[in-house]
Amino acid sequence: MNAFESVLIGGTWRASQDARASFRAFDPTSGEEIGPQFPLSGAADIEAALAAASEAAIALAACAPERIAGFLDAYAAAIEADAETLVNLAHAETALPREPRLAKVELPRTTNQLRQAAQAVRTSSWTQPTIDTHAGLRSHFAPLTKPVVVFGPNNFPFAFNAVAGSDFASAIAAQNPVIAKAHPAHPATSRRLAYLAHLAVLDAGLPAASVQMLYDFDYTLGAGIAGDARVGAIGFTGSRAGGLALKAAADAAGVPIYAEMSSVNPVFLLPGALAERGAELAQEFFASCTLGSGQFCTNPGVMVVPQGAHGDAFVAAASRLFTDAPASVLFSQHVRNQFRRGLAALVDAGAQVLAHGRDSAEAGYRQAPALLGVDARQFLAATQALMTEVFGPASLIVRASGIAEMVAIARALDGNLTGTLYTSKQDRIDDDAATEIARALRPRIGRLIGNKMPTGVAVSAAMNHGGPYPATSHSGFTAVGMPTAIRRFAALHSYDQVPPRLLPEDLRDANPRGFQRLVDGVWTTANVAAGETS
Amino acid sequence: MNAFESVLIGGTWRASQDARASFRAFDPTSGEEIGPQFPLSGAADIEAALAAASEAAIALAACAPERIAGFLDAYAAAIEADAETLVNLAHAETALPREPRLAKVELPRTTNQLRQAAQAVRTSSWTQPTIDTHAGLRSHFAPLTKPVVVFGPNNFPFAFNAVAGSDFASAIAAQNPVIAKAHPAHPATSRRLAYLAHLAVLDAGLPAASVQMLYDFDYTLGAGIAGDARVGAIGFTGSRAGGLALKAAADAAGVPIYAEMSSVNPVFLLPGALAERGAELAQEFFASCTLGSGQFCTNPGVMVVPQGAHGDAFVAAASRLFTDAPASVLFSQHVRNQFRRGLAALVDAGAQVLAHGRDSAEAGYRQAPALLGVDARQFLAATQALMTEVFGPASLIVRASGIAEMVAIARALDGNLTGTLYTSKQDRIDDDAATEIARALRPRIGRLIGNKMPTGVAVSAAMNHGGPYPATSHSGFTAVGMPTAIRRFAALHSYDQVPPRLLPEDLRDANPRGFQRLVDGVWTTANVAAGETS
Repeated sequence: MNAFESVLIGGTWRASQDARASFRAFDPTSGEEIGPQFPLSGAADIEAALAAASEAAIALAACAPERIAGFLDAYAAAIEADAETLVNLAHAETALPREPRLAKVELPRTTNQLRQAAQAVRTSSWTQPTIDTHAGLRSHFAPLTKPVVVFGPNNFPFAFNAVAGSDFASAIAAQNPVIAKAHPAHPATSRRLAYLAHLAVLDAGLPAASVQMLYDFDYTLGAGIAGDARVGAIGFTGSRAGGLALKAAADAAGVPIYAEMSSVNPVFLLPGALAERGAELAQEFFASCTLGSGQFCTNPGVMVVPQGAHGDAFVAAASRLFTDAPASVLFSQHVRNQFRRGLAALVDAGAQVLAHGRDSAEAGYRQAPALLGVDARQFLAATQALMTEVFGPASLIVRASGIAEMVAIARALDGNLTGTLYTSKQDRIDDDAATEIARALRPRIGRLIGNKMPTGVAVSAAMNHGGPYPATSHSGFTAVGMPTAIRRFAALHSYDQVPPRLLPEDLRDANPRGFQRLVDGVWTTANVAAGETS
Repeated sequence: MNAFESVLIGGTWRASQDARASFRAFDPTSGEEIGPQFPLSGAADIEAALAAASEAAIALAACAPERIAGFLDAYAAAIEADAETLVNLAHAETALPREPRLAKVELPRTTNQLRQAAQAVRTSSWTQPTIDTHAGLRSHFAPLTKPVVVFGPNNFPFAFNAVAGSDFASAIAAQNPVIAKAHPAHPATSRRLAYLAHLAVLDAGLPAASVQMLYDFDYTLGAGIAGDARVGAIGFTGSRAGGLALKAAADAAGVPIYAEMSSVNPVFLLPGALAERGAELAQEFFASCTLGSGQFCTNPGVMVVPQGAHGDAFVAAASRLFTDAPASVLFSQHVRNQFRRGLAALVDAGAQVLAHGRDSAEAGYRQAPALLGVDARQFLAATQALMTEVFGPASLIVRASGIAEMVAIARALDGNLTGTLYTSKQDRIDDDAATEIARALRPRIGRLIGNKMPTGVAVSAAMNHGGPYPATSHSGFTAVGMPTAIRRFAALHSYDQVPPRLLPEDLRDANPRGFQRLVDGVWTTANVAAGETS
């Protein structure tokens, strides 16, 4: 026994059985430790969680979908009712602004996401029911009947939290239990969310071990659970190094992993757009790059700007904004160290520092934003090094001699989450160039964006928060957006000449809830006529 | 230069640049070499194919879908027109019967599959167009814009051929070039198919390197191409050892691999079904197990049969059929060696030989079918060893003391392609037991089958020819069935506030072809009203 905070295992809050150490959160604005001691879990906690989740998986897969949807809705409501406490905890642990960020943007996004998942469950949209009456075959997506392990990131204490975010909502919507590994940068926030989730689980009558949470465990144990064949799938959001280590372990065991790892989110400013509204774009770029201290997966990390007077004016305007900017508070000492290492690596690879904000003598993890620059030839000669993601308020401007070089840059890029084109809004002067750049860019990114910075990620069926490797581990899936994100945590099940009483509800002839189903090639909400099936 | 048959690289038939050796096909009925010398390709051939395919991928992704569909239809027609030659070649190389198997079953299935892929292209069903007018977001599945490498198996010279089968049709439908690695057991058949495919490519005006084919290369080179980041995805059908070696290489490079590897396809005979029609079931089982000399991924490899008089009668009847059966001709010396090793391994693990067909003194790769047996307790004590797939005309009968043991067997199973339940057709005596077994079986299989042997695989949107690891490498995908199989070779693309002229056809407001699209959560063929989108 120990005096550390309890972990949520097997349906109860209990002491860690074999804590290897303990840790506290830090106030990023002061660098001081805050809050209680949280256990760093050992192998016994993980084994207990896996055993409990494996049992719960069977019961959860057999639950009525209405009960799952009820849980998701009730949890969303509980988060809203507890908003003040949650926002205060998250603010203390992350230094993200209470408003608008935490209270007005991220928390509503999180509850909206849980409710969209509930809606996908109620309408069975994620199962994609498919019926072939001629062949006597029916198929749909179904629970994995194994637990999903979710590794949460540092940068969204609510919307990507391992016990409340998109991976969590997706895995539960697909009727799989979640073992959440919270991020150690915001343990008290995660604890509070897990407390609410656990109460909602009990209220909804789901198996008590449907939601479990550990605050942290070390890399070796992380690789161990990722490579355990009892695990149905892994959701991970974080660094490339961390994601690749888990991916190697999961791959070896045949466990599907959906890792969202890194992206520089290239933005191409076309000449017409620059001429038309260069000063406005500099402001928009600076605001996006420093929002949330730049700690976004979709931060605009590479800006491709044409040479010439308008490009020079843009760079000068952006440089002034960066130079005048105060230091931002980053999440942790680790993030700040990585940020500085990243800047140094870009400089080593040939980038120049164009602008550097005001340093601060105050305590805490403060960091002045930085703007770097290279010309296109340098970028093309050292693309791998210059594509390194620098997580925080920094961006690299690449000056291109013309459209041909912009296309060459697009072709040289690795997989990214997003790619953005800014074009003239007044006339069609940029159209041909935009088409050419888009063609080169399209296969290298998940989301193509027009005239907007990449940092906003809407929760929508048509969103793709994903992209080709190494941005993520699989270009066919999105980490955000219902019902699409749910299908990551599902297995395809076919029924061949199976008697009606053994069919799941969404595949029976009668369709009283009006699910949208693909019947003989046509999407319809109709019943299948009795006797229509061979 | 050498005197070996030409390989199809870069849009022309040309001599292998660095053949490491040559090989000929064998007539399985005699064990004699037949036909010309085919090259075992070296690294230079592979590099040339990859370079050509990488270029072709960009052009192919930009092709009008109608041209892709036209190719698939024309290739199907060319196969039909050439049926006599193809059937003769395949018969000579595989010893599979000309009729019905090759001419009446497999060849029509292959052309039907190509045409279903063409239809999926014309209707854009595989792209799953999704539009969110409120958020200004649109998404669909799109080409990888990289080549797909297809490794074909020995057992379907047409329907799974690397240059004509489901992986091929799926990859081309998704507008990706294919580099086919034919199976060395039927090189002349593959050569003929590639010849027809190549002509159809040129006729359709697709990039000439859209279809390339090598007859064979060694494991090291196979792992090399699977782990090459220029490859968009891999399709593999074959042994578990081969699949896992490619998967390890592909995983390390972030290349998605869809490997269909092994399955014992458990069949559960319930007491009512046995009492009602045991003799008929014995005949059905024997026929399925020896069809095509048992060389099917979906062969019934494990039969779970209750103890008692009806079960005894079933086993006795099946044993008589196996004992009386003549030797079957297998595809190759390798298949026969593996078959014998597999039988020996089952016996080592505790199985008894219940029946063994008539051996043959004739030449060729002949093998008597074999029926083995264990009791459930043995099976549960040595499940891993007794679940080993024996590729060929063999099956293992597991005698269970009752429903509880049948459920325990289901729970002990690894991932499989199929699982089958035979139940009474006259009354509901088996219903409760079937429900209980199905619940245990369902998460461990891709396709649940009622009262039918697993060997038939229909090409249908509701088919799942897939299953949990290690049956395949990902339980969310099927290797057979349009449009579902096509999505394996696709990337998810989202468009965020992108001007209409940069949108692909299936995501524009106007929907003149009446594609089925998910617009604001509803499947519809309607246009999106102008100005409806933010």
